[in-house]
Amino acid sequence: MSTDLFARHRALLERAVQALDARTHWSPYPESPSPKTYGEEAAAQGRAAFQSYLGKDFPLNQPGQTGLHGGERSPWGVPLDVRYPVCDPEQLVAAAQAAMPAWQRLGPDGRAGILAEALQRLNQRSFEVAHAVMMTSGQAWMMAFQAGGPHAQDRGLEALAGAWRAQTAVQREALWEKPQGKGEPLRMAKRFEPVGRGVALVIGCATFPTWNTYPGLFAALATGNPVLLKPHRDAILPAAITVAVLREVLTEQGVDPNVVMLAVAPLRNATQALATHPGVRSIDYTGGSTFGQWLIDNARQAQVYAELAGVNTVVIESTDAYRAMLKNMAFTVSLYSGQMCTTTQAFIVPAGGIDTDEGHKSYDDVCADFAQAIDTLLADPKTAHALLGAIQSEDTVRRIADAPRLGTVVRASQPLPHPEFEAARVQTPLLLACDARDEAAYMEERFGPISFIVRADDADAAIALSRRIALDHGALTSGVYSTRPEFVDAMVEASWDAKVALSINLTGAVFVNQSSAFSDFHATGGNPASNASYTDAAFVANRFRVVQRRWHV
Amino acid sequence: MSTDLFARHRALLERAVQALDARTHWSPYPESPSPKTYGEEAAAQGRAAFQSYLGKDFPLNQPGQTGLHGGERSPWGVPLDVRYPVCDPEQLVAAAQAAMPAWQRLGPDGRAGILAEALQRLNQRSFEVAHAVMMTSGQAWMMAFQAGGPHAQDRGLEALAGAWRAQTAVQREALWEKPQGKGEPLRMAKRFEPVGRGVALVIGCATFPTWNTYPGLFAALATGNPVLLKPHRDAILPAAITVAVLREVLTEQGVDPNVVMLAVAPLRNATQALATHPGVRSIDYTGGSTFGQWLIDNARQAQVYAELAGVNTVVIESTDAYRAMLKNMAFTVSLYSGQMCTTTQAFIVPAGGIDTDEGHKSYDDVCADFAQAIDTLLADPKTAHALLGAIQSEDTVRRIADAPRLGTVVRASQPLPHPEFEAARVQTPLLLACDARDEAAYMEERFGPISFIVRADDADAAIALSRRIALDHGALTSGVYSTRPEFVDAMVEASWDAKVALSINLTGAVFVNQSSAFSDFHATGGNPASNASYTDAAFVANRFRVVQRRWHV
Repeated sequence: MSTDLFARHRALLERAVQALDARTHWSPYPESPSPKTYGEEAAAQGRAAFQSYLGKDFPLNQPGQTGLHGGERSPWGVPLDVRYPVCDPEQLVAAAQAAMPAWQRLGPDGRAGILAEALQRLNQRSFEVAHAVMMTSGQAWMMAFQAGGPHAQDRGLEALAGAWRAQTAVQREALWEKPQGKGEPLRMAKRFEPVGRGVALVIGCATFPTWNTYPGLFAALATGNPVLLKPHRDAILPAAITVAVLREVLTEQGVDPNVVMLAVAPLRNATQALATHPGVRSIDYTGGSTFGQWLIDNARQAQVYAELAGVNTVVIESTDAYRAMLKNMAFTVSLYSGQMCTTTQAFIVPAGGIDTDEGHKSYDDVCADFAQAIDTLLADPKTAHALLGAIQSEDTVRRIADAPRLGTVVRASQPLPHPEFEAARVQTPLLLACDARDEAAYMEERFGPISFIVRADDADAAIALSRRIALDHGALTSGVYSTRPEFVDAMVEASWDAKVALSINLTGAVFVNQSSAFSDFHATGGNPASNASYTDAAFVANRFRVVQRRWHV
Repeated sequence: MSTDLFARHRALLERAVQALDARTHWSPYPESPSPKTYGEEAAAQGRAAFQSYLGKDFPLNQPGQTGLHGGERSPWGVPLDVRYPVCDPEQLVAAAQAAMPAWQRLGPDGRAGILAEALQRLNQRSFEVAHAVMMTSGQAWMMAFQAGGPHAQDRGLEALAGAWRAQTAVQREALWEKPQGKGEPLRMAKRFEPVGRGVALVIGCATFPTWNTYPGLFAALATGNPVLLKPHRDAILPAAITVAVLREVLTEQGVDPNVVMLAVAPLRNATQALATHPGVRSIDYTGGSTFGQWLIDNARQAQVYAELAGVNTVVIESTDAYRAMLKNMAFTVSLYSGQMCTTTQAFIVPAGGIDTDEGHKSYDDVCADFAQAIDTLLADPKTAHALLGAIQSEDTVRRIADAPRLGTVVRASQPLPHPEFEAARVQTPLLLACDARDEAAYMEERFGPISFIVRADDADAAIALSRRIALDHGALTSGVYSTRPEFVDAMVEASWDAKVALSINLTGAVFVNQSSAFSDFHATGGNPASNASYTDAAFVANRFRVVQRRWHV
């Protein structure tokens, strides 16, 4: 049956591989939550489906269930009260291992067909997933729909296509004939089998519970590995729906649904035990550096793919579009209240100020004008709420409260009452000024709407600082504003050295913190912020091994 | 100038990529040391070139030289007395880092041209390299020529071609256009740069100082990384010649020769300091598991590619070509006195014996007939010497002396005087019988001409044992003899699970311990014997990162 699904989705997979190669714009999953694309009933059905979970036990029918666990706390202050099965880790690993051989035997095509079908169903259920993402992560509705639905599906399909291509690129059969002078040639038949490494653990984060999870999830599954999906304790529902959809398709296809299971681990040491289980052979992780580093140091039996914290910087040397630059930067720090691993934390400005199309601007001018640009952007509360979303975690609320001591407050963070969600934690961005020497202030990740305008001695010092921060503390994104080609070139060289993606003179409707599947690589894997990239060849190549056999013919 | 070299070697690279895909027989480097292919003068010139090094300082002109070191001890008992520059590790790393940006700027094509040229020159110097390999490793002449010369060059070209392909598969430029309803589309220009991880350390072994070194060396260089080549203390000369050839081509091309340097480290702690240097970003290692595991555990700043020890097994269930099977096995254990990481250590035979074309053979029959087959193969001293070579290390000599206590001696190892090299350490294979329960005897690597005929309860237990050994102790090769297709199928399934290459019913002139570049993957990277494979996509994919930049257009 999975052959039928492969036939059904083959053109999509081939188109996705093409897109990965070309890196031009492409997506099969419409990003607009419009009735024209998703159907007149989709919005209402999605909302109803989401609401049907609330206050209930989430049905998954997994082996080894020992209890139930819930307690997700919505940043919007909405009670969720969904309870998820807690299963014995040993039994989860054993069930996954038992499901692996049949999953292996389906081969790259059979698996790709099933996974593409699951992505299509997830796409049809984008409204349902979007509500789950919004209510758990604190994202505003439009972002929850786009990043939680179609854009996450894009990243999943991208990983699936990359994994499918990497396996199908392996020749499966060969006849090896070695000439022997005048004698008969030596002849060997050979077969080459791509085989998954073993059980994969995929650990999700609270802010992007689908977008950051789907790459590892689909890459691991596509390469023949059963997956235990361990969601963040505050964002279980989007993962549970994803697992349910996958198990539904597997079951329909007569495949053991234990190829994918939800691994709810109420306590960190349960996650640690799972991560160091000898049967777990790969781990995908998105989240803080402390636990990520713990995984890298301790889960030595597994290949670890980690997206960690970093300090993203933008260097401002000069611009010929001052207002547009400030507007772009204001949007960047406001979007989801800076709770993206790609948000700029430090804007580095020379002490002597910058040349612009509106004349020379001093360092203080830039600070004041940036603050003003944020005020302008967020002046209309409706726009503000559409952009900001809610603060995902209490830790971030505390960080915002604590941060003013780290510099001179250029723009204070204010709570913003939400017309619909009374108990929502909404805060506007905090902007701080500080000197480059105040490294303790800005040179560690301050996750949330906390940004620094860092005063560097001069423009060259700004590049050197940006480079050093990325090399020492990691960075997923960097930016530069300059009208001088040689300065941009120097920043490009620094970006190669520090292995961080660079956005140059962004003044329009593309932002340094956004990356687009099939075109932008998310992270490089080359500095402390990550050891892997969505989705390059290395992200999939090591998830399977090629096992050969040969005999005389 | 490197553009010219790329043009010169482009067809070769394209053909090599084709060969990697097809996995049929191919090699551009003739394996026969024949005057017809290498020229009438090649043999004499190669020998003279080799002899010109003896008793002298090897000229490399590297930075930071602090002294000289030599002392290679030839297993043939021939004095070498070559002295190599010892350079300050900090200066080596700094010089490599300084050479990297220009190496980076040459791009995948420019680097591939230079490296293909170096391989061609190494091929022309195959006789010289073969003498160096023979005299340091103890290999017999023909193996030293083939494995040390053309076959090593094949493996180098394979890695080069794989690395070149992986980088050129990355789209370098894209125009990203995202439709915006009726408005103008968003348009971004994007550039994608493959960038090496950083300084690579390549650590060679004493038995195959070129064959096991060239994959990592050429993969690391091709992906933009400068290389420090650290040879085994007893096999420096082949590495030094290789480095000299590479530096010669680099210099001719106006490229800083410090892209490749020889890192002679007289003491293990000097190697350890180099391996854990923060500037060293990848390590290729071939050798014992103890130091390999130390590297994996301690060189955490680097990506480690390790080929370690294992326990290779062959399961014998039945055969329709008893004599040919025994002859094939005898050749396997005799070739280079079993000093190949791919040599079978344990032949597992059911206690009840096996069915053959010569009737049923008891376990004891198999033991005796195997011993006899070795005696027959080695009866002619000329053949014996051509096959056995010399014992590379004193440790192996001691292991042979110590091994008889590990089981019942079926065939004793004897020293064999060499007509040409009086002081050569030559020993014939030792064959021991033991029960499967004597795990301490056969279940750890006994490097050298020491093999066990292990008595298993039955055929199914033999498969289970073979599988468990590979999973727990690692294996690079495995074999099966059976006339029952369902038994072979079960062994195939076990090989997938244990991720070990399987040779089925080898009775002709192909041996379980041989792997052929462009067709056979050497190691899978999927069990404790290795964490990487020559040359799959994973072997090259993670040696570079893709760094992008983008701007509005």
